[in-house]
Amino acid sequence: MKINALVATQAGQPLRTGQVELRDLQADDVKIEILYCGVCHSDLHMARNEWGVSRYPLVPGHEIVGRVVATGDNVTKFSVGQTVGVGVMIDSCRECHFCKQHEEQYCEAGFTPTYNGTDKYTGNTTFGGYAQHVIADQHFVVTVPDNLALNAVAPLLCAGVTVWSPLQHFNVKAGDRVGVVGLGGLGHMAVKLASALGAEVTLFTTSPAKGADARRLGASNVVISRDAAQMAGCQASLDIILDCVAAPHDLDPYLSTLKTNGQLVLVGIPDQPHPSPNVTPMVFRRLSITGTSIGSIQETQQMLDFCGEHNITADVEMITGEELETAFERMLTSDVKYRFVIDMQKTRW
Amino acid sequence: MKINALVATQAGQPLRTGQVELRDLQADDVKIEILYCGVCHSDLHMARNEWGVSRYPLVPGHEIVGRVVATGDNVTKFSVGQTVGVGVMIDSCRECHFCKQHEEQYCEAGFTPTYNGTDKYTGNTTFGGYAQHVIADQHFVVTVPDNLALNAVAPLLCAGVTVWSPLQHFNVKAGDRVGVVGLGGLGHMAVKLASALGAEVTLFTTSPAKGADARRLGASNVVISRDAAQMAGCQASLDIILDCVAAPHDLDPYLSTLKTNGQLVLVGIPDQPHPSPNVTPMVFRRLSITGTSIGSIQETQQMLDFCGEHNITADVEMITGEELETAFERMLTSDVKYRFVIDMQKTRW
Ligand SMILES: [Zn+2]
Ligand SMILES: [Zn+2]
Ligand SMILES: [Zn+2]
Ligand SMILES: [Zn+2]
Repeated sequence: MKINALVATQAGQPLRTGQVELRDLQADDVKIEILYCGVCHSDLHMARNEWGVSRYPLVPGHEIVGRVVATGDNVTKFSVGQTVGVGVMIDSCRECHFCKQHEEQYCEAGFTPTYNGTDKYTGNTTFGGYAQHVIADQHFVVTVPDNLALNAVAPLLCAGVTVWSPLQHFNVKAGDRVGVVGLGGLGHMAVKLASALGAEVTLFTTSPAKGADARRLGASNVVISRDAAQMAGCQASLDIILDCVAAPHDLDPYLSTLKTNGQLVLVGIPDQPHPSPNVTPMVFRRLSITGTSIGSIQETQQMLDFCGEHNITADVEMITGEELETAFERMLTSDVKYRFVIDMQKTRW
Repeated sequence: MKINALVATQAGQPLRTGQVELRDLQADDVKIEILYCGVCHSDLHMARNEWGVSRYPLVPGHEIVGRVVATGDNVTKFSVGQTVGVGVMIDSCRECHFCKQHEEQYCEAGFTPTYNGTDKYTGNTTFGGYAQHVIADQHFVVTVPDNLALNAVAPLLCAGVTVWSPLQHFNVKAGDRVGVVGLGGLGHMAVKLASALGAEVTLFTTSPAKGADARRLGASNVVISRDAAQMAGCQASLDIILDCVAAPHDLDPYLSTLKTNGQLVLVGIPDQPHPSPNVTPMVFRRLSITGTSIGSIQETQQMLDFCGEHNITADVEMITGEELETAFERMLTSDVKYRFVIDMQKTRW
């Protein structure tokens, strides 16, 4: 079926409204009319082929909130009219060790990305959430709590679960001392979620101007990472750090703020390597540097339920499809608090 | 009290027999007549002040096996004549979180090193195992199983426990697939201990000549790390790797051999940084790079008991004190299988 979408046709061109073809509804499929789609940094990189893997035409978007408008014959999990979300994955092998234990993000065959992936049924490229509709297997669709503002839920589907997953995997609990590096789309969700879990959050930022915001979002401490005295003041004080900065940066000052047995979790991938970390404190204080990739469908649902209970959403700036290129430019200077979200119903098709 | 020792008097000079002063026996102290002392790489670095922290006169040695010859009034754990060992630590604060939970190696105040540390009672420099005697608090003395060859036990006190501790901390068990990088003093113990735990061991080496030895010591697989095809053959196959190579080297090929959730454990500290590791597989497969430092007293005793049950000792080359400088020179070219051990009773004082 043909649908309306914001389409990138080549690397150097802005996205324009157009049409793409989705697969026919399969027995386990849910068809969703998209209300809102968050604008993730990876959307920008992929639209512009900055990672060299983009296939055109390309429709970005994997922070999707919408309403179910059709269901396949096997669909039991959802019914028409329900408010649902779709994140970074729309399928996986369903058979490997990781799929079977609800960690589809680590599927041994590789999960099917919501966009720029290969559709399991048609072999065609998958198209994302900068569109009026999306189709996904019911297993990869999650329920959105009724009490939340739907536009501000959209960024939870990628940014939210990407920081929720390490908080869960590394068992962050009330009273833990959690560092968050960078107050962007991921970082602002990390501050909100970790503090709602009862952790004491320290936000590291290069921008003194972000201090007040960080405290409003839930941080107990704000440390200007360029200020050596402030960094020295929090040596060996943190249980875990979520490093949400993808740009190459020196990891050593953050390692030094971890307690013995602490974990530095990287959730962003730099396009150039970080400076090589100093092994000495890693050995003498049994520190780990690790990474995690988005989160599972189960974790996504848990996070949405948790957000429903704690009334947590992202801080967003709403745009229409026509404003996307301007939004991309502002994202390049980190000029967004803290996620752009496209209002599909206000976009002219 | 004065004792005979092999003493380094300055960085550029060979060690010579001489005398140094130990503290008087305290109530909790055990005085040990040393039978054997292993020659650790750190002994060489410290004797020659290559880390810039050496205090002369310096007596190296922290792989000590000997017999108890005197005990303080409070000593209940040992009696005269018993065969015992002393490793890298002879004291710690005893009060911090880590000391209380039997992880003295991570003592927040810093443990007291067996040599080149500061004696808690006298404030003087501590002297190590290249000597006829050593004095240590009973808590830092371990029991050596009767059935083992004592000369070949000595290297267990540093090299052995340094690889045993990560095997325990990361819960390596029968059937796990364990990589070991480098077949030196630490690596050969890692192969022996991991395989005795029932793990399937893959030894990575740059030297094809070490293959037969690795298999004899317990490795199931030997991979020549410079051979790209061999490395490609073990992609994503290992649960954990103990990287026993201190020289700077590329960690990325080893990361690629780890399964999702795998751990690359560094037990050596390079004097120049390793090349910066690639973050991409760490994120996409939730890999960790971590380090561990020696092991606790409890782990040391557990390891010695385990070695007693499984009849495990180090492969050693015996020397006398007079042959030490020659041994140091051979260690610089990795020409030792796999640890030199000084026989104190054959050394002329
Ligand atoms: Zn994203
Ligand atoms: Zn799978
Ligand atoms: Zn040592
Ligand atoms: Zn302590």
